[in-house]
Amino acid sequence: MSHSYDEQLDRLTGVLAAMSREAAGAIRGASAALLNGDRAAAETVVRGDAVLNGMRDDVHAAIPQLLVRLQPVAGDLRLVLCAMRIAGDLERMGDLAVHIAEVALMRHPVTVVPEPAVDVMTAMADAAARIADKTSVVLSTRDQLDAMQLGLDDDEVDAAQARLLAMLVSAWPYGVESAIDLALVGRYYERYADHAVNVARQVVYLVTGTIRL
Amino acid sequence: MSHSYDEQLDRLTGVLAAMSREAAGAIRGASAALLNGDRAAAETVVRGDAVLNGMRDDVHAAIPQLLVRLQPVAGDLRLVLCAMRIAGDLERMGDLAVHIAEVALMRHPVTVVPEPAVDVMTAMADAAARIADKTSVVLSTRDQLDAMQLGLDDDEVDAAQARLLAMLVSAWPYGVESAIDLALVGRYYERYADHAVNVARQVVYLVTGTIRL
Repeated sequence: MSHSYDEQLDRLTGVLAAMSREAAGAIRGASAALLNGDRAAAETVVRGDAVLNGMRDDVHAAIPQLLVRLQPVAGDLRLVLCAMRIAGDLERMGDLAVHIAEVALMRHPVTVVPEPAVDVMTAMADAAARIADKTSVVLSTRDQLDAMQLGLDDDEVDAAQARLLAMLVSAWPYGVESAIDLALVGRYYERYADHAVNVARQVVYLVTGTIRL
Repeated sequence: MSHSYDEQLDRLTGVLAAMSREAAGAIRGASAALLNGDRAAAETVVRGDAVLNGMRDDVHAAIPQLLVRLQPVAGDLRLVLCAMRIAGDLERMGDLAVHIAEVALMRHPVTVVPEPAVDVMTAMADAAARIADKTSVVLSTRDQLDAMQLGLDDDEVDAAQARLLAMLVSAWPYGVESAIDLALVGRYYERYADHAVNVARQVVYLVTGTIRL
């Protein structure tokens, strides 16, 4: 059965939307593992990463075929090319959620986040989850204003990471290992958010033909 | 003046080779800043990042045009698509070198690397520089065996990062701030090497049409 031009492009964006939902689920699971010691959630995130990797591989394998078969130009060509980079960003978001889940698993049943850091880490986790959800929305609506909103949540993640680092270097009583865990976890959230912003930036490029975010 | 099909593809690979040399120079400069307190080297790395960003943007802008103009298929299509991802990886390598240079600048004239960590950090810096050089070579020779060699240097970077973290968590006498600096710098080298391996993986795909590394 052959599929129309539009069907093939719709299928491509459908996979990207599914990937973004996976990436959003992964960061939520990782945060539950980190903040509530939810071991099952951590294991689900780690196991689930293969799904995102497979979807990324599918997208990358489909791109050359779509280019040859559909010979897209202008906006459709941008869509196909952006899909390649968006799939890469979403797959990395999954990896970073896995890194966070792995830190939680490594220390389980001891919590990675001692009481004084719970607020700042929760702020980071919440902002990352919001960014993930907005990324899913932006991928389906392609709304430029929504896409630009992601920058604000990203600023929140960065600000939380700065607060966290400031806390760690001023008389942190839980030792060096705990400080390193938290600094790296903060870095993983930061990169997760950066990749989400990259996705939004690609969507803006898709729609407008120029990058500006 | 119009250019032949081959000239246009050669120009594309020429930009990638130039990018890989920039990325190699950047990690060498960052390591000199980190290990020898070379402030001028750090500033050169930070300033130089715009060059890599510009080259990445040029590559990304050229891809849709090349696809429409040349209508490449098979290996040439793979080359054009891989160029997009390779340019992305090389640009990120530059960013990571900048992160390392920035840590050195932030602490200057105090060294980020106290005596006990010099050996392991030097091992990491050397392996990263070797990987960078091999990436440049692989981009021009497209030799699969060379490409697969990169994995070994990457293992060395990962092993050095593991040694570094083990050292930091066992009675590190230089404080939490120093430990966080070093853990993050180790992470930046690790990611630098990962992106180099990604480039090599793309080159193998380019040549063989399958990813295996």
